[in-house]
Amino acid sequence: MVKMIRKVVKEIDPLKDALLIEGLPGIGHVGRLAAEHLVHEFNGELFLELYCYDFPPQVLVKDDGTIEYMRAEFYKIEEPKPMIIVLGNTQALSPIGQYHLSEEIVKIGIEYGASFVYTFGGFGTGKISEEPKVYGATNRKELAEKIKEHGVEFRSDGGGIVGAAGLMLLFADLNNLPGVCLMGETPGYLIDPNAAKAVLEKFSSIENIKIDMEELKKRAKSMEQFIERIRKFEEEMVKAMQKPPSDEDLRYIG
Amino acid sequence: MVKMIRKVVKEIDPLKDALLIEGLPGIGHVGRLAAEHLVHEFNGELFLELYCYDFPPQVLVKDDGTIEYMRAEFYKIEEPKPMIIVLGNTQALSPIGQYHLSEEIVKIGIEYGASFVYTFGGFGTGKISEEPKVYGATNRKELAEKIKEHGVEFRSDGGGIVGAAGLMLLFADLNNLPGVCLMGETPGYLIDPNAAKAVLEKFSSIENIKIDMEELKKRAKSMEQFIERIRKFEEEMVKAMQKPPSDEDLRYIG
Amino acid sequence: MVKMIRKVVKEIDPLKDALLIEGLPGIGHVGRLAAEHLVHEFNGELFLELYCYDFPPQVLVKDDGTIEYMRAEFYKIEEPKPMIIVLGNTQALSPIGQYHLSEEIVKIGIEYGASFVYTFGGFGTGKISEEPKVYGATNRKELAEKIKEHGVEFRSDGGGIVGAAGLMLLFADLNNLPGVCLMGETPGYLIDPNAAKAVLEKFSSIENIKIDMEELKKRAKSMEQFIERIRKFEEEMVKAMQKPPSDEDLRYIG
Amino acid sequence: MVKMIRKVVKEIDPLKDALLIEGLPGIGHVGRLAAEHLVHEFNGELFLELYCYDFPPQVLVKDDGTIEYMRAEFYKIEEPKPMIIVLGNTQALSPIGQYHLSEEIVKIGIEYGASFVYTFGGFGTGKISEEPKVYGATNRKELAEKIKEHGVEFRSDGGGIVGAAGLMLLFADLNNLPGVCLMGETPGYLIDPNAAKAVLEKFSSIENIKIDMEELKKRAKSMEQFIERIRKFEEEMVKAMQKPPSDEDLRYIG
Repeated sequence: MVKMIRKVVKEIDPLKDALLIEGLPGIGHVGRLAAEHLVHEFNGELFLELYCYDFPPQVLVKDDGTIEYMRAEFYKIEEPKPMIIVLGNTQALSPIGQYHLSEEIVKIGIEYGASFVYTFGGFGTGKISEEPKVYGATNRKELAEKIKEHGVEFRSDGGGIVGAAGLMLLFADLNNLPGVCLMGETPGYLIDPNAAKAVLEKFSSIENIKIDMEELKKRAKSMEQFIERIRKFEEEMVKAMQKPPSDEDLRYIG
Repeated sequence: MVKMIRKVVKEIDPLKDALLIEGLPGIGHVGRLAAEHLVHEFNGELFLELYCYDFPPQVLVKDDGTIEYMRAEFYKIEEPKPMIIVLGNTQALSPIGQYHLSEEIVKIGIEYGASFVYTFGGFGTGKISEEPKVYGATNRKELAEKIKEHGVEFRSDGGGIVGAAGLMLLFADLNNLPGVCLMGETPGYLIDPNAAKAVLEKFSSIENIKIDMEELKKRAKSMEQFIERIRKFEEEMVKAMQKPPSDEDLRYIG
Repeated sequence: MVKMIRKVVKEIDPLKDALLIEGLPGIGHVGRLAAEHLVHEFNGELFLELYCYDFPPQVLVKDDGTIEYMRAEFYKIEEPKPMIIVLGNTQALSPIGQYHLSEEIVKIGIEYGASFVYTFGGFGTGKISEEPKVYGATNRKELAEKIKEHGVEFRSDGGGIVGAAGLMLLFADLNNLPGVCLMGETPGYLIDPNAAKAVLEKFSSIENIKIDMEELKKRAKSMEQFIERIRKFEEEMVKAMQKPPSDEDLRYIG
Repeated sequence: MVKMIRKVVKEIDPLKDALLIEGLPGIGHVGRLAAEHLVHEFNGELFLELYCYDFPPQVLVKDDGTIEYMRAEFYKIEEPKPMIIVLGNTQALSPIGQYHLSEEIVKIGIEYGASFVYTFGGFGTGKISEEPKVYGATNRKELAEKIKEHGVEFRSDGGGIVGAAGLMLLFADLNNLPGVCLMGETPGYLIDPNAAKAVLEKFSSIENIKIDMEELKKRAKSMEQFIERIRKFEEEMVKAMQKPPSDEDLRYIG
């Protein structure tokens, strides 16, 4: 078991036949970027925060001295279609934690009216592609055919999906929910608004929702700055701890 | 505790005095190959799936876009002898997970009528052997003598059995069930149908069951392709994550 | 879940509107040093010990043959202001353990009357500073402004807080308690009474408490000796275990 | 939580004011060797086995094809003094597991009548000593003085005790039981009957029990053979797994 805490930010009525959409960090930040774009475009309303004891044991500090917690946030969208969107600034650290977190997200989705699961992610190729393809996977044979008609591709040489984007399809299935994962082709080492756009275009086509992509690049920009700060923070920590005597000294004291 | 989920695929009546046979992945894939062969030869019927939160936190994607979960599958065979066969595409990742998984498999076996446990595995020697020996181990002294009569050998210099193939004999014992482990001599780095054949021959001799070995090599072939795909998937993930900035970026996002 | 044991050393009545102050080991031992100084200056009374199963699995031996356990200690101070001070000789080892430990400390604080949380720590810069700055973080916007007025700085390039000093602000928040983290600038690889003094000066200014700093350096000295002993102990263990045959032999025996 | 299973081998009445004596594997196998000697000399009777899910996930195979499980065994001795002796072929693997195992052993001891805890161990120095000293540690100040009178020494430069030998003194204390750890000076990389003898001589002196040491060296000999086998087994496993393709292949199969 991995403990989690749900903090209800706003009491809402469950939606009807909503799409649960996952946007946790991953390769190229594609999934997070795409999901966050939906929240902004369709005025998503934060209604629940999820804290998991297997998230990194830290908090982030903002410029104004206030704190950002490691957590997943649940946003509700009513129009053009009921959606519950999960954004996060981290995945769970351990394998077991990833199972529990994915299960909890699906559970919350169902409690708030989700009947279908989308997970967004990146598919890392190591090289830049002008027109990124979107690869798909699904827990229903009939959905495989449907998304293929919308131009989603399947890799002939297989592969896998690591983390919440994959496991949420398992827990969707165990709860009798259909689910689709859309992965945008991405170099993997950049924050990739192009791949996010490609994913959203397929999503838009499959669900027949119009999505304005204008702001997507701006969002990628500000995400880049944030990640640059995280990297700096981690470098500093390493620097401070690599000095003599030894980092063991940081753990014990009498 | 490690959470597990049982999904009953088909309601069946418990068997009577069935053999519970373990075929999870391991050295040379010998055990899995041998157990899978029994399922095919004797028309095993899938009745239960087991999902463990300590399996690798991922799903595999098939050519047609549908998903294969990490899980153990329980098959029922009625003729020539009642058997419950457990096939899996993974072992549990952590030591504690391996204990819990082995216990759960034995428990399920008992609930469905098992009164005897076989675990199949490979014994890695690092070199190819024309006529692979079969080494045995058992939780009953009288069984040691019995299997010796069928040509199963014991290593004079001891050794051990790691993972489910060993721990299931412990949990069999704690539930008063006799159990035997049969390990086919194998180089260890190849999928080895010869070692699987050797194991099945001893099993056939001890249990007095005729087993047609014709299809065994074909099965090894298709397993090889699958494993090749897994390797590729893992290589790609590593590739996508080794690029700058740093793989830490895959975990956090703001 | 990570098991913890509370040992009540002395039954006390809950304080009223007390400050809960964290002083577990960390960068430069700044937090621990500052918090311990408060215990000494204001005659803190030990009332509770907390043992966590995720602390290092060891005990320390003192010169007189008696034992020092890995634990956190809770001290009560009534004057000049109600305070509950937590000193420890270790942090929890695993991420999950750090969440549970931080939660438990905040819970105990609340049970004994805390309505505000301070966490003290060091901010490692890798270089020595004559006049160490104090960086702050808080879970309340209005507190950010207040501590800024007392000269606490915010880093323009962000950063984070790892371990109990950060997570206790999360659990304070989840329990509707305001909280402030004060981090003294420190090289990071020395026990740093200067940084501790800087932290205490800001604390003194914010809370309007007079604190005599005379003894602070002496305390740093004796802490240095303790840490030197720990280092020696760890070196010896490594030495004893690096010899042939192999350290695996230390785990098994027949 | 870490699951454990107690298997009662023989129902016995609790002893009165028994010594609980720990002999799990450790540095130089000193503690295990000394405790096992007591079992043999005073005809210890096995009454309980303890299986811990955090033990290494494996079984050992003996020459005759039967299996030895990873476990701790509890022996009862009535004369010359009531004793409960715990022998094991392993320690728990994780820090948390070590806490739970130590707690469970002390609990079992108390249920069967223990009112005092001894833990035996080795103190690794990296060099061979003709007349090994015995270092002590205790959870009671008055016991420190008592054992000093019997020639047990305290290290002036401190140190620590890792694993069950240390943690059992903590759990003894939390249950209001006095406890003493005796550590024989040993190179650390050999099975050391001399250090075990030194430990037993102090124990004999403190408890006023005569112990014949004749068989001690023989026992060390047979333990050496066992450990040699374990090493071989581990070498073979590594060998079998280091070959191409990759050890990842051992985990997955389709």
